[in-house]
Amino acid sequence: MVRTIDLNVDAGESYGRWSLVNEEKLFPYVTSVNIACGFHAGDPFNIWRTVKIAKKLGKAVGAHPGFPDLMGFGRRPMEIKNDELYTYIIYQLGALDAFLRIENLVMQHVKPHGALYNMAWTREDYAETIVKAIKAYNEKLILVAPYGSMMVLKAEEYGLRVAYEAFIDRAYERNGRLVPRGKPGAVIKDVEKAVEQALMIIDKGIVKSIDGYEVEIKAHTLCIHGDTPDAIEFARRVNEKLREVGIELKPLGEILS
Amino acid sequence: MVRTIDLNVDAGESYGRWSLVNEEKLFPYVTSVNIACGFHAGDPFNIWRTVKIAKKLGKAVGAHPGFPDLMGFGRRPMEIKNDELYTYIIYQLGALDAFLRIENLVMQHVKPHGALYNMAWTREDYAETIVKAIKAYNEKLILVAPYGSMMVLKAEEYGLRVAYEAFIDRAYERNGRLVPRGKPGAVIKDVEKAVEQALMIIDKGIVKSIDGYEVEIKAHTLCIHGDTPDAIEFARRVNEKLREVGIELKPLGEILS
Amino acid sequence: MVRTIDLNVDAGESYGRWSLVNEEKLFPYVTSVNIACGFHAGDPFNIWRTVKIAKKLGKAVGAHPGFPDLMGFGRRPMEIKNDELYTYIIYQLGALDAFLRIENLVMQHVKPHGALYNMAWTREDYAETIVKAIKAYNEKLILVAPYGSMMVLKAEEYGLRVAYEAFIDRAYERNGRLVPRGKPGAVIKDVEKAVEQALMIIDKGIVKSIDGYEVEIKAHTLCIHGDTPDAIEFARRVNEKLREVGIELKPLGEILS
Amino acid sequence: MVRTIDLNVDAGESYGRWSLVNEEKLFPYVTSVNIACGFHAGDPFNIWRTVKIAKKLGKAVGAHPGFPDLMGFGRRPMEIKNDELYTYIIYQLGALDAFLRIENLVMQHVKPHGALYNMAWTREDYAETIVKAIKAYNEKLILVAPYGSMMVLKAEEYGLRVAYEAFIDRAYERNGRLVPRGKPGAVIKDVEKAVEQALMIIDKGIVKSIDGYEVEIKAHTLCIHGDTPDAIEFARRVNEKLREVGIELKPLGEILS
Repeated sequence: MVRTIDLNVDAGESYGRWSLVNEEKLFPYVTSVNIACGFHAGDPFNIWRTVKIAKKLGKAVGAHPGFPDLMGFGRRPMEIKNDELYTYIIYQLGALDAFLRIENLVMQHVKPHGALYNMAWTREDYAETIVKAIKAYNEKLILVAPYGSMMVLKAEEYGLRVAYEAFIDRAYERNGRLVPRGKPGAVIKDVEKAVEQALMIIDKGIVKSIDGYEVEIKAHTLCIHGDTPDAIEFARRVNEKLREVGIELKPLGEILS
Repeated sequence: MVRTIDLNVDAGESYGRWSLVNEEKLFPYVTSVNIACGFHAGDPFNIWRTVKIAKKLGKAVGAHPGFPDLMGFGRRPMEIKNDELYTYIIYQLGALDAFLRIENLVMQHVKPHGALYNMAWTREDYAETIVKAIKAYNEKLILVAPYGSMMVLKAEEYGLRVAYEAFIDRAYERNGRLVPRGKPGAVIKDVEKAVEQALMIIDKGIVKSIDGYEVEIKAHTLCIHGDTPDAIEFARRVNEKLREVGIELKPLGEILS
Repeated sequence: MVRTIDLNVDAGESYGRWSLVNEEKLFPYVTSVNIACGFHAGDPFNIWRTVKIAKKLGKAVGAHPGFPDLMGFGRRPMEIKNDELYTYIIYQLGALDAFLRIENLVMQHVKPHGALYNMAWTREDYAETIVKAIKAYNEKLILVAPYGSMMVLKAEEYGLRVAYEAFIDRAYERNGRLVPRGKPGAVIKDVEKAVEQALMIIDKGIVKSIDGYEVEIKAHTLCIHGDTPDAIEFARRVNEKLREVGIELKPLGEILS
Repeated sequence: MVRTIDLNVDAGESYGRWSLVNEEKLFPYVTSVNIACGFHAGDPFNIWRTVKIAKKLGKAVGAHPGFPDLMGFGRRPMEIKNDELYTYIIYQLGALDAFLRIENLVMQHVKPHGALYNMAWTREDYAETIVKAIKAYNEKLILVAPYGSMMVLKAEEYGLRVAYEAFIDRAYERNGRLVPRGKPGAVIKDVEKAVEQALMIIDKGIVKSIDGYEVEIKAHTLCIHGDTPDAIEFARRVNEKLREVGIELKPLGEILS
C-alpha cells in the first residue's frame, strides 16, 4: 500500500508594506496552501500575488479565514455571535474565491486560522458555525481540522468532507491537543524529530505525548509553519525525508477522493 | 413605445453598531440595490441582512465597491496603484457574491462608490481598472456609470455592458458632471423638480444645467439617495409619480437585455 | 446632609459617516461624559466635536477606552495579553487627552467600555492592568467601576481613586451583577422605576435584584444610556425627578474630593 | 566652527505580528527617531516597545503621524478635509505622547509620514493644517520638513520652530524635490556617495541635482531609511564617516536651540 500525505502551509499572510512568508521559496515543498482572506492578514493584492504563485507552482489552494483582528493577527480568542461568525466565514471564502475565479482555479479546502481554529477544536457552537458556513457556500469544500476535534464531529454530522490535520513541529498533550506555545518543549525545532513524529502518525496512527503516552491520531495533512526564520529549510528537509522513506506527497483533495 | 427606467439605491452601508439606511422601508420603491462590500461600509452581517431583504422583496442586486476607507466612508479621493485597485474590486465583488450565492441570487451589476465613482468618471486609469476587474470577475455583469464618462468609454472598449446612470436629486454642470455638494443649488430636495428632471432625462435625453443649458444625457437607471432623513418618502413619491405618467420601472438588467 | 450623585453618559461614539448619540441634546441632562477614544468607536474628528460640546456645556470629561474592535463596537470579549491591553489603554487615554489639552480641559475620569468593563468587573488580570495603566498615565484620574467589582479592589490596592457606578435602567442579579441584556426584564424602560431604583441606591445603599433580594450597592455616579431612540427624554426626566426630590447633581470629581 | 547635524530614522513601524525595523540595532547610529503613531503603522504595544528602546539608548523622540491607511502604509495621497486632518494629527501626537509620559520622556519633534509629508511639501492647506495642529498641541515642538517647502513657510508664519531635513540616499530634482522612487537613479545605495551628498549639504549648503545643477539646500537633520535589508550597515557607516570628517552628531533639538 502506498502511504500518502499532504503538506500544508499558511500563506498570503503579508499585509501591505509588511511581509511574512516567502511563498515563492516555500511552496515548492508543500502540496496544499491555506491563503489568508483579509481579516487576520492578507490584503487583496497579497492574496492575488499568493494565488498566482500557487497557480504557477501547481499547488492546491484553500481558504484560511480568521477573526477580524489585524492587530492581533487573529490569534486572540474572541466571543462572536454565531450568526455573525457565520457571515465572517462566508465573506472571506467569497473574497478569496474571487481571485481563484479570475485565475481559473478551484478552491480545495478551508482551514480556520489561529484562535478560531483553536476555539473550534473543542467548542461546539463555533465548530458547527464553521461547518454550516462552508457547506452553505460550497458543499464540495473540504474542512481541514484536527482528528478528534469538535470540527470533525460537526463535519461528519453535516456531511461535509474533512481532512484530519496533524502537527509535526508541535508537541502534543495526552488529550490529543497541542502543548501551548509558551510551555517548554512545545515547539519541535529538530527536523529529525519532526519527521519521526510524522512517520509515527502516518504509519502507526499515534503520536507520543509530551509526557510519554501514546495518543491515537489520524492525519491526511501535516501542517508546516512558514513564518519562522528557517521555515523554508525546515519544509525542504521534511519534504525530502518523507519522500526518501517512500511517502507520497499529494494534495489533500486527491487523498480524500 | 413603453418608457422604462430603473431606480437604484445604495444599501448595506451600516457597519456593526451603526445603522445608515432602512432597507426594509426603502427597497419597495426601487428596482435595483447597490450593496456595500466592506471597504467603505458594510460588515459581513449587514451585507447578508441586506441581501436577504433584497431577496425577500425581489430586488435586483449589484455590488457597490469602494475605497478602503471606513473613517471617510470611501468619499475621499485616494491615489491607489491600478494593480492594487484591481484587486480591491475583485475582492469586494467576491465577498458580496458569496452572500448572493448562499441565497441563490445572481449579481446583476456593479456601481463603484463615492470617490471611486467620481474619480473614474474622468480618470482613464481608474475607469480602465474598474472595467477590467469587473470583466475578469464576471463578464456578464453590468457596470453602472454616468453617460459620457470615462467608465462608459472603457466599458465599450472592453465589451462590458454598461447602464447609464443619472441623478434626479442633484443639479448638473454644463459639462454633464454634478454640481459639487457644497455649492448652492447642488441638491434638489423638491420631489416635483426631481421628477421633472427625471422626465426630461427619460423623454428628451437632456438635463437642464444649473446655469440654464440643455445638456445631452441618457439614462437606464436613476439614483435615489437613501441616507437622508426623508429618503424613504422621497423615494416613495418619485416611484409613484413616475408610474403615474406611464413610466415602467424595471431592474436595469431587464432594460439592457 | 445633601445627597449628591453624578449622572454619566457614553459619548463620542459616532464614527465617520455614522452617528450614534446626539451629544448636543443629551449633555444638558448629565454631569459627566465618557468619550470614546477610537478603538471601539470615535474617529478623531468626532472626538474633538464631542469634547467641544462638553466644554461648551461645562460637562466633566472622562475617557471611555475599549477593545480594538470597530466591527463589534467593543462589545465582544477578547483575550488580550495584559502588556498589550496596558498599551491599548495608555494609547487611548493619550489620544483623547490631546483634544482636552487643545481645549484647555482636564480629564476627570476613565470608564472602560463594553466587554472590557464587563470582563474587568470580575477578572483580576484585566482589572489590575486597567488600574496600572491609568495610574501610570495620570495618577490623579478617577476610575469609574461598579461597586464590589475587581476593578474597585485593584484601584484600592494601587491607591487609585475610584467612583462607584450603578445602573438605573438595568436589572441586577442577586450577586450584584447586571442581568444580561438578552434576558426578560433586563432593561428598565420605565422612568419611574429607574428613578425609584436610583433613589434606593442613593438613600439606602441597596438595589432590589430581579428575583427580589436586597443587594448592597454604593454609587457616586449613575449611568445613563444615550444610544436608544428615547435616550434624551429618559435622561431629561431622570435629571428632573432626581432634582425634584432634592438630589444634587454634580460631576463625580467634585463628589469624590 | 563645529559642524553639527542630526541623523533621524523612522521607527515603530511594526504592526502586531509584522515587523519592519530592528530598532535595537539601528538606533545606536542615529540621534533622533520618528515613531509611528498607529495610523499608517505602529500598534500601541510596538509604539511602547520602540519608546523604551529610544529611552534606553538615549535617543530624542519625535512623532511620525500619517494618513489613516494601514493597507497602504500611509504612502497613498488622500484628499482629507483640513479640519479632519487637523484632528488626525492631534490624535496621533497625543497617543504617542502618552507613552513618552509614562516613560518620563519629552517629545522633541514631529515629522509627517509618507504621502502626508510629500503632499504638504507643496500643498498650502495641508502644510498649514499640520503646523496649526502641532502648535495647538504643543508650541515647543519642532516640525521636521524639507528646506524650501510649504511646511517651512507655514511654520515660520505661525512661529513654530522647524528643522530642515535633507535626504542623503535620494537623488534631487533641479527644483529641490526628490526624484520619484520609480525613476532610474532615484535611490543612492552607495554609502560613499551618500556621505559625499551629506557633506556638500552640510558644508556648502548645496546638493547636486540628478541632471547636474547645484541646488541650494539647508539641513539640520538627515534622514536615514531603516526599512531596507542593509539599513543598519548603511546607518553605521554614514554615522562613522560623518564623525571621521569632524561632523558632530546631535539631536535636532540641541542644534536648533
